[in-house]
Amino acid sequence: MSNFAKPQPSERSEERCRQILDAATECFQRHGFHNASMAVISKTAGMSVGHIYHYFENKEAIIRAMVEIQARELVNRMDEIRRHPDVLVALVERVDDGMARNTLPSSAALKIEVLAEAARNPDILNTLWASDRVAMAKLKETLIAAFPPLAAEPAHLDGRANLITALFDGLAIRALVNPEFDREGLLAALRLTIQTLLRESPVGRSGAT
Amino acid sequence: MSNFAKPQPSERSEERCRQILDAATECFQRHGFHNASMAVISKTAGMSVGHIYHYFENKEAIIRAMVEIQARELVNRMDEIRRHPDVLVALVERVDDGMARNTLPSSAALKIEVLAEAARNPDILNTLWASDRVAMAKLKETLIAAFPPLAAEPAHLDGRANLITALFDGLAIRALVNPEFDREGLLAALRLTIQTLLRESPVGRSGAT
Repeated sequence: MSNFAKPQPSERSEERCRQILDAATECFQRHGFHNASMAVISKTAGMSVGHIYHYFENKEAIIRAMVEIQARELVNRMDEIRRHPDVLVALVERVDDGMARNTLPSSAALKIEVLAEAARNPDILNTLWASDRVAMAKLKETLIAAFPPLAAEPAHLDGRANLITALFDGLAIRALVNPEFDREGLLAALRLTIQTLLRESPVGRSGAT
Repeated sequence: MSNFAKPQPSERSEERCRQILDAATECFQRHGFHNASMAVISKTAGMSVGHIYHYFENKEAIIRAMVEIQARELVNRMDEIRRHPDVLVALVERVDDGMARNTLPSSAALKIEVLAEAARNPDILNTLWASDRVAMAKLKETLIAAFPPLAAEPAHLDGRANLITALFDGLAIRALVNPEFDREGLLAALRLTIQTLLRESPVGRSGAT
């Protein structure tokens, strides 16, 4: 189903795709998805419109490629964390990275733009759903590696994986609506939350079940 | 600066405003902000366009009114929680409500639509900023009432208030991207998180400062 990089896996075509995706990212952020035409994207990328259509059949295909790349990057980060001798420590250490990535104003604006489009475009929503399923499965694997008791409690595993994802998604909204938040204070609260969710037994605390 | 309800505070005019806001909510959700013209909104509201302009000078004014109403509702909820003899217990009890409100598909779609518009429209972004400042101040007051040690640690208070807000905002994104999440598991994780953030001393846990 993916239209990203039609079968031409040369280094040159990958570079071209990346160039188009970077230009499209800039255009979506600046003008919004609807006002960023293929013509605007081609001008920003310094490439003919025909050339862009050679790689992506339309704007939706560009967004789908963006979503798929982000899911792949998340999977790679999780695989890297899994190779760490102490997965819980590695997860908490990566909290800083995750916050920085999600609160970058440009990536926050792009995320919100893609979501707004998905709310009205079933094709893009399907891509988000599919990518989310891949990312969730990987995150759950990682959470179990950090805290094995979660494996025996599917509902709690699902709840904690969704809560952590909601948290980082919500940080993108914070970056837009309250860019002045105290970064150190938020980092401390984030670390405390992740540690708690990966140390507390699902049935161990009153009110937590 | 608000254009909501020009000075005609009669019951009838309030009812008219509510009617317009309901229609606009429905139109923004269904068509997106840009495709929901004043004509479409007037048709949905069963009112003439001229009548709508009598209450709201343009679509931006309608969004601003929506944002302001939501901030006011949040302030009211916090005031209600403050009247409870045990504020921490009251906060944890309200977690279910907060989750239900934020994961309602229609309100999630509207939230994302308003955010996407704010990312490109400084006027709407300013309204969001102003409303967020009011809501944050109220949330901080409530957190201090639940857990007084936070008053002595402004950075941690700010961090925890922003984290809790990010969480609930992120739930709206979850509702769109992964509507199948385990509600009971997520509720348990949410309660555990709120309890931890309102019981753990800011400097009491290793890695949490």
